[in-house]
Amino acid sequence: MDYTEQPVRRVSTYQGVVVELTEDIVKLSNGATTVREVVHHPGGVCVAAVDADGNVAMVRQFRYPFGAHLLELPAGKLEKGEEPFPAAQRELSEETGLEADQWRELGAICVSPGISTEKLYLYMATGLHQGAAHPDPNEFLDVERIPLSQLVQMVDRGEIQDAKTVVGVLKTAAIWGGD
Amino acid sequence: MDYTEQPVRRVSTYQGVVVELTEDIVKLSNGATTVREVVHHPGGVCVAAVDADGNVAMVRQFRYPFGAHLLELPAGKLEKGEEPFPAAQRELSEETGLEADQWRELGAICVSPGISTEKLYLYMATGLHQGAAHPDPNEFLDVERIPLSQLVQMVDRGEIQDAKTVVGVLKTAAIWGGD
Repeated sequence: MDYTEQPVRRVSTYQGVVVELTEDIVKLSNGATTVREVVHHPGGVCVAAVDADGNVAMVRQFRYPFGAHLLELPAGKLEKGEEPFPAAQRELSEETGLEADQWRELGAICVSPGISTEKLYLYMATGLHQGAAHPDPNEFLDVERIPLSQLVQMVDRGEIQDAKTVVGVLKTAAIWGGD
Repeated sequence: MDYTEQPVRRVSTYQGVVVELTEDIVKLSNGATTVREVVHHPGGVCVAAVDADGNVAMVRQFRYPFGAHLLELPAGKLEKGEEPFPAAQRELSEETGLEADQWRELGAICVSPGISTEKLYLYMATGLHQGAAHPDPNEFLDVERIPLSQLVQMVDRGEIQDAKTVVGVLKTAAIWGGD
């Protein structure tokens, strides 16, 4: 596969708090040029924290783009210059108050690779200790623990739709069931 | 969970070919207002087409936001007014030339629900017939068939990072292994 696209010129079309948009003129392998819209996103982390009884810490929060409450694994954006692993520890603690003795990488996912730079790093955390949650001031969420086996059934039935959560649950179940 | 966010006013900040950006003033449940950046995306479809030997049709294409070739299930955006199922049939045919006798819904995923309206509908297709592919003029991709078992290993090793592909492969494997 020799096909690539080379950036020629970038125009910033929107600068928001979370995302930046650019229109990039790119040169295709056949010599033609086209425009690529790119959503620039800082990326983030997502954690499946499983307690000794096989229950997973989940957060339920209102997601404005869908006007609905979604059930998700704890997750959050990378802060400027932050590495994924400390971000995962930080987000788990902020949203659920949990700290974990063991961490395992579950790989990364590109959530919309045709248009967005958003990449999420997934982790499984075990050996949990409960502390106090301290979510962001404008972050309203409920934390609950749900058996991993029940989450797998909810994924199978299409009741969990958040992509990172589906991936995190299925990868965690493959490890938990196989260990 | 009573917490919701009510839209008060929307400002369109960018109108592209693929996405539109808005800044929405929203009223929080505690009476405060804040701004939500929203990426409006038409949504799309993704198909795991499995042949009688357990091989899955995959496409490898250059993804400009990552400057790399990604291995993905055939997928594409919904056209204006198009329903997911015919879009899935159309995209599978366009990208791979395949038609399928049996279709099964694998549920939908929200790829970035904090910021984007993008929702992808996943399908598993079997009973395949090969025709001619007819990709879009500016779409350059290679089609290959890879054993489902090998794809599951690649997902486990983090070698497949496209989120819809990870979900489609793992859900298809659960059904294929269980049938």
